Amino acid sequence: MDFYSKFAKRRETLNSLLCVGIDPDVSKLPPSLEKFPDKLFLFSKEIVDATADYAVAYKPNIAFYEAFGSKGIEQFEKVISHIRTNHPEIPIVADAKRGDLDNTAKQYAKFFFKELGVDSLTLSPYMGSDTIKPFLEDESKLVFLLCLTSNPDSAELQKKTFSETGRTLYREVAALSEKFSPRNVGLVVGATHPKQLSEIRNAHPDRILLIPGYGAQGASLEEVVAVCGKNALINSSRSIIFSSSGPDFAEAARKSAASISVEMKKLLA
Amino acid sequence: MDFYSKFAKRRETLNSLLCVGIDPDVSKLPPSLEKFPDKLFLFSKEIVDATADYAVAYKPNIAFYEAFGSKGIEQFEKVISHIRTNHPEIPIVADAKRGDLDNTAKQYAKFFFKELGVDSLTLSPYMGSDTIKPFLEDESKLVFLLCLTSNPDSAELQKKTFSETGRTLYREVAALSEKFSPRNVGLVVGATHPKQLSEIRNAHPDRILLIPGYGAQGASLEEVVAVCGKNALINSSRSIIFSSSGPDFAEAARKSAASISVEMKKLLA
Repeated sequence: MDFYSKFAKRRETLNSLLCVGIDPDVSKLPPSLEKFPDKLFLFSKEIVDATADYAVAYKPNIAFYEAFGSKGIEQFEKVISHIRTNHPEIPIVADAKRGDLDNTAKQYAKFFFKELGVDSLTLSPYMGSDTIKPFLEDESKLVFLLCLTSNPDSAELQKKTFSETGRTLYREVAALSEKFSPRNVGLVVGATHPKQLSEIRNAHPDRILLIPGYGAQGASLEEVVAVCGKNALINSSRSIIFSSSGPDFAEAARKSAASISVEMKKLLA
Repeated sequence: MDFYSKFAKRRETLNSLLCVGIDPDVSKLPPSLEKFPDKLFLFSKEIVDATADYAVAYKPNIAFYEAFGSKGIEQFEKVISHIRTNHPEIPIVADAKRGDLDNTAKQYAKFFFKELGVDSLTLSPYMGSDTIKPFLEDESKLVFLLCLTSNPDSAELQKKTFSETGRTLYREVAALSEKFSPRNVGLVVGATHPKQLSEIRNAHPDRILLIPGYGAQGASLEEVVAVCGKNALINSSRSIIFSSSGPDFAEAARKSAASISVEMKKLLA
């Protein structure tokens, strides 16, 4: 099934937009896992199994695995394989923020879509359309382009306005996404920018938005759901996966995911 | 020794700016290597040893290894280790074009600089300064920010002009690099844009430029050297590493590297 259908089906089934971010920061893992050489995998697997009833999608970030080189990537591969085998109904967005020349992009597409078989991938749009196209050869896949990111310095470039089009850089990226089908290209927009999130939603109603950064410095879940509509994935990582550092970490993650889901259901009603 | 000193010393020793790009595209490898499971490593190692007399720097692109997942990354690790052990005087620029949030960027920095021990890394600047800073905690390292890339669609975003500053996006990135020491942040500028290359060189004389894409669609080596000055690395990948697909591939690569070096020496004289 293609990403779009898988996402839509899962969203309807759960009546939720919750994307669970799998970011196994080694400095925050439960001490009980410390002794295991494959602790990134073990932690991720436990979190996945504990939250599967509530996850519309999973978004593992490869950086946390790549930090440990080939041994880390091996665990990343095992996490993806575990989700695909045990929770095949849940779409996977690999958070990789890749982006490279045509020929090189093909290599990244080969790894993520053919070897790993994830459903979706985040990309940096800086280099332009010809670096995005190689990722869309398989029409069942979707890429999320970084549009307006949740970090403080995102304004440095992304919020400046181009004189040729009157659009900010992030709006230009959103406009560029319209070259492609909404079934193939979505946009990453941080919840730290509720006004701009609303602006992008209105201008591009068909694009799936991937929204990190709600809570903490960002807008509340209520605000985000109010502006983003149903064509979106709202990501939560740390507030779910690091709910407890005790041996009950998985059960605590499940409770956090359940509680966000209940809130979401109310907001979407 | 820090990247900057290593680069400067090597440049003076060889009187050259040649950066050898290690892009082991599996579809182009010599058939004689086909049977080996670690053919990416074997090919890269042979190319490195054959061209070491002429390489001011090596630029292996991780995408060609990552295409094969953890087994590919393992070979990438072996390539880096081989260069560091056998050719410690030659600086390594890992071409990865990474870029992610503060905490996540730290993970990438950990892999490339601590685990692998490369001297330099390419980064995408789209997300802004706070995603660049985590890579500069070790002051001996340098990152090259994508500025104006060599692909045709680079113009879509990079050549548009911001009304706030009157600068194009690529000039804005170049301006942003000035927040950091020239010993820590350089710029990637494609040889496909000789006019803009000259403009960037004049505006940022202290920045090391990493210049891919000369020949083929780009400017000639003569044109590039005339505008970029000596504070630059001029990259050549395919025209060196795929000089022959026969069993003589390494010797052919050596000859190509030697011939570019001779031309460069003349142009720099």
